[in-house]
Amino acid sequence: MNRERVLSGMQASGKLHLGNLVGALKNWVDLQDKYDCFYFVADWHALTTGYANPASIKENTNDLLINFIAAGLNPDKSTIFIQSMVPQHAELHLLLSMITPIGWLERVPTYKEKQEQLKDRDLSTYGFLGYPVLQTADIIIYRAKFVPVGIDQFPHLEISREIARRFNYLYKEVFPEPEGLLTEFPKVLGLDGRKMSKSYDNAIYLSDSPEIVEQKIRTMMTDPARKRRTDKGEPELSPVYHLHKIFSSKEELDEIAHGCKTAGIGCIDCKKILIKNVFAYMEPIWKKRNELISNPDSVLEIAQKGSEKAGKVAEETMKLVRDAMGLPCMM
Amino acid sequence: MNRERVLSGMQASGKLHLGNLVGALKNWVDLQDKYDCFYFVADWHALTTGYANPASIKENTNDLLINFIAAGLNPDKSTIFIQSMVPQHAELHLLLSMITPIGWLERVPTYKEKQEQLKDRDLSTYGFLGYPVLQTADIIIYRAKFVPVGIDQFPHLEISREIARRFNYLYKEVFPEPEGLLTEFPKVLGLDGRKMSKSYDNAIYLSDSPEIVEQKIRTMMTDPARKRRTDKGEPELSPVYHLHKIFSSKEELDEIAHGCKTAGIGCIDCKKILIKNVFAYMEPIWKKRNELISNPDSVLEIAQKGSEKAGKVAEETMKLVRDAMGLPCMM
Ligand code: SF4
Ligand code: SF4
Repeated sequence: MNRERVLSGMQASGKLHLGNLVGALKNWVDLQDKYDCFYFVADWHALTTGYANPASIKENTNDLLINFIAAGLNPDKSTIFIQSMVPQHAELHLLLSMITPIGWLERVPTYKEKQEQLKDRDLSTYGFLGYPVLQTADIIIYRAKFVPVGIDQFPHLEISREIARRFNYLYKEVFPEPEGLLTEFPKVLGLDGRKMSKSYDNAIYLSDSPEIVEQKIRTMMTDPARKRRTDKGEPELSPVYHLHKIFSSKEELDEIAHGCKTAGIGCIDCKKILIKNVFAYMEPIWKKRNELISNPDSVLEIAQKGSEKAGKVAEETMKLVRDAMGLPCMM
Repeated sequence: MNRERVLSGMQASGKLHLGNLVGALKNWVDLQDKYDCFYFVADWHALTTGYANPASIKENTNDLLINFIAAGLNPDKSTIFIQSMVPQHAELHLLLSMITPIGWLERVPTYKEKQEQLKDRDLSTYGFLGYPVLQTADIIIYRAKFVPVGIDQFPHLEISREIARRFNYLYKEVFPEPEGLLTEFPKVLGLDGRKMSKSYDNAIYLSDSPEIVEQKIRTMMTDPARKRRTDKGEPELSPVYHLHKIFSSKEELDEIAHGCKTAGIGCIDCKKILIKNVFAYMEPIWKKRNELISNPDSVLEIAQKGSEKAGKVAEETMKLVRDAMGLPCMM
């Protein structure tokens, strides 16, 4: 069984919301049966922007790992690990730093963007500039063939391909150039109709209790033109309807669209159906989350076993890397 | 016996010459009895400028290690190791990168200087900019109290002190701020009267055979005004006399100074005395070098044992570092 390898990670910089779940994470779950998947929590990456408050990184890492497993990542199928538990990433990062032109890093579009976004933090650090070098090390240390990416993330992968190519050119053909595995994620709108995002404060989190989820949906935005029960609505203009598209059945969807347009259904009832369906979707995840939270040792064990397995693969690659560069010099 | 720790390294980027030997290296030897010394070959550092030709780094590392031991570094007294054999340096380098402002790195005086000096190489790399971060990791990972420095090297140490201070401030008091251990090195002039330096091509190397050393001294510059045997000379203007100051006895020195000034001694005879004294100084080193060259396993063993010992100390520090930052997140 020689399946192609897929590598992906999530930065431990915040709680996961429904947008992350039905987007990236469910896609990871689907890939498990077809590929040799390596999935990791990027806690070192979270330091690039969160170095001043690492305590939250620790919490987020634990929570992210719980979400991975609760959402359906299976440690028997995939290698699930934590970046900082595989120190070979740091060694490869250092070696790649030697061959990576600063200009390449400054030109990565997210470099200036993120500095703008997070103006309250001091991101003029060496590590923040080197973010793509570490990301490249993360990917190529497993000699992964594919990295699942959305269409807008292709440019991010380009620098990893360039660094891998430069290494192969300077020393020896060690790394396959990682390819993007294009995945179409459903776009999930938040409570206010904008894209669901932690920074807009419009998200439903996997860690939200059922009560909170219910309350968030009950008070979420509808078609703003539909002020009274008797007003007709336009479902496409209602963020509630957009969530229905993800969580409700085709039949319910038709019924709601029709009911909304004809004022045959009220927003309160419409939301009740959504609440029911989100609950049905989330219940197995909540159940698994609670199990894992009350059994932290089982989570630790999964992380340790996965990191050990990842470490073996990473060490194999590092042997090739050191050999290609003639390091360490005394071996 | 709780001796204070001293840390120093040499970059594996070229052959050692007499200037390095009677300067830094002999000083290292002297420090061995008073301090708990950690001395290393910086092969990863050599990549910052030599990434395009790592084969020479391998050769230089081996040669440097041989010179360390031949010059009198004693593996029973000091911890002698190779940077790339202690991967914890790379992990600390990564973590320190997160808290190091780019501005600090750009302001290091050698940054622009070296780029100017080595115009033929492309040094606009991320790793070259980060050179002081790696250097800081090298020093503070051993929580060294002292770093032997010449007076002009104090500024280089300042950035390491600043990074250590920033770590202690952001997380927890882990690192002592390394202090410079001021050492006066005799200034060694080269064959042409300028400072002895690889880049001036005016050096006598430890790897030069006695024949080559003899020939280099025989043809080296004298007081340019002393054209004929009967001309009187001014020893202070003769590079030969400057080498006598290092390698010859007080009596010989007085005799030569007087003989030169009165045309009582010819340059050929003067140089013969220097050759004799350099040979006497170098003979035990040459002998030890030849022994080590013909017994590469013994060199490897010293490097391995030393690196293992260094690795244990480095790992202890990394435990404190990871604990202070709350990493790895699952432990
Ligand atoms: S009925 Fe449903 S889809 Fe229509 S506006 Fe109200 S909440 Fe939105
Ligand atoms: S006698 Fe010696 S010191 Fe005087 S010029 Fe000649 S080589 Fe130099």
